[in-house]
Amino acid sequence: MSKETNPVVQVVLNGQTMALSEARVAAMDAGLLLGAGLFETLRAANGRIFRPGDHLERLFKSAEALEIPVVESADQLAEYLAEALVRNGLQEARCRITVTRGPLPSESGQGNEARPTCLVTAGVLTEYPEELYQQGMTVTISDVRVNPTDPLSGHKTTNYLTNLIVLREAHARGGHESLRFNGPGRLGCGAISNVFVVRGNRVLTPPVSEGCLPGITRKVVLELAERLGIEALEEPIEAGEVLQADEIFLTNTMMGVMPVCRIERHAIGDEKPGEMTVQLMNAYNQLLMAETTGSQG
Amino acid sequence: MSKETNPVVQVVLNGQTMALSEARVAAMDAGLLLGAGLFETLRAANGRIFRPGDHLERLFKSAEALEIPVVESADQLAEYLAEALVRNGLQEARCRITVTRGPLPSESGQGNEARPTCLVTAGVLTEYPEELYQQGMTVTISDVRVNPTDPLSGHKTTNYLTNLIVLREAHARGGHESLRFNGPGRLGCGAISNVFVVRGNRVLTPPVSEGCLPGITRKVVLELAERLGIEALEEPIEAGEVLQADEIFLTNTMMGVMPVCRIERHAIGDEKPGEMTVQLMNAYNQLLMAETTGSQG
Repeated sequence: MSKETNPVVQVVLNGQTMALSEARVAAMDAGLLLGAGLFETLRAANGRIFRPGDHLERLFKSAEALEIPVVESADQLAEYLAEALVRNGLQEARCRITVTRGPLPSESGQGNEARPTCLVTAGVLTEYPEELYQQGMTVTISDVRVNPTDPLSGHKTTNYLTNLIVLREAHARGGHESLRFNGPGRLGCGAISNVFVVRGNRVLTPPVSEGCLPGITRKVVLELAERLGIEALEEPIEAGEVLQADEIFLTNTMMGVMPVCRIERHAIGDEKPGEMTVQLMNAYNQLLMAETTGSQG
Repeated sequence: MSKETNPVVQVVLNGQTMALSEARVAAMDAGLLLGAGLFETLRAANGRIFRPGDHLERLFKSAEALEIPVVESADQLAEYLAEALVRNGLQEARCRITVTRGPLPSESGQGNEARPTCLVTAGVLTEYPEELYQQGMTVTISDVRVNPTDPLSGHKTTNYLTNLIVLREAHARGGHESLRFNGPGRLGCGAISNVFVVRGNRVLTPPVSEGCLPGITRKVVLELAERLGIEALEEPIEAGEVLQADEIFLTNTMMGVMPVCRIERHAIGDEKPGEMTVQLMNAYNQLLMAETTGSQG
């Protein structure tokens, strides 16, 4: 039924544009069997990807570190993203690049002509409700520690089930997201976001070595703070400092800058998005608009 | 070329027997994109799977805990394993069951008829060299901690890239395997094995809560120890106790019981497989033979 009533979603698999329903990979793909894969989630606005260069740079760095071969160039990947947007008629979209090591050679010597897998998709963007930006999220505290000693730490790999479970647990407990800490008890990240803590005039976020991703929105916020003359630093943050924060906000590609006003039943500041958060949220939204309409940068 | 010279490998995908080269899954499979998958590696000897019930019990327990739906019954999975062995003409084999949440529904509402993915394969068994059993493995110490707070801890998920990297690092440093510890510094597991430590007359292995898998070979060894009147316990093991061990051995489905005689340059005991290890190794090999030939149990 849905095939008649919905447009056929188009994706780009290994450089070929095709209907989603036709997009299939070898069952022996090392991404499927062993988690040997990476991904990027990218936001398109006004028909253009926001910060494609930053996303692709991160992807290639991680690919090198974790030995996930990517045969496509950055230009080709950017082209596939554009293709996915156009073919699906999307201006505002959630795009994704997934790369894996591709099919494992079978024991019998078949499959030696295998190539790494590269899937590029673009889907309808489901924005976070506007009221969340006005009233702030409620976050829970997760018992699931981040592990900075893990070689996957700091890389956006397809080994993503832990994140999904932490997020689902937050939802089950009435939260929108969850804060995770590392072994020594310092702040790491959210289930699917980076975390910023405002104390007085300083904006702090944990260094990647504490067990978080080098998020692209995180990077943009650090840049924006510098432009705005706000002191923003990557600095380890003790658990106690989180509860005493004046403001807290989260970042990721789909949220942008998202205020946090409650940790479980504990109010942050006066339980409204704080001044710094609102300033950076507005600056981020303006930059997203400016860069994707080409009116700046 | 290989298609002419090698027999075509047959696999069972979602209940259908087919050539490996035909076995394909949706590119939107949640196993591929998000690591929402589990697997079991099983050993066949004499044309029969060793301990299928234990493997399937673990698979279904983990599937329930991590909400990976499995539509096949244990009997059906056992049947697919038998089918994969027969179709590939294998008596001695390394089999694998992989299950995932299956294709994510696309944003446009397609893919709602999706079912979870279930792949069953049987491949040629590459046994560990006999000399390793006689001279013992050399293991390295990994800096990569296990994380018992992770909801995936204790489950054999397809989020397996960390394990592969730890194993590769061991190989790069001249080891055969690597020992991993948890945050508090106690023994967890190997990259791909469980670890046993012998001190005096006691055989110790960490409880699953320390950050290891409930390995099937581990379970069998604990059973065998009881039958043989050997005191074998699940007990937390401090790092220092590992270095002072009289004997160390590893277990997994493909190794069986594997002596460890060196931790990096440090000899364990008199650098030969110890008495307890040899006793349990022999008992394990006899049991494997007995149960797969049907001459016992």
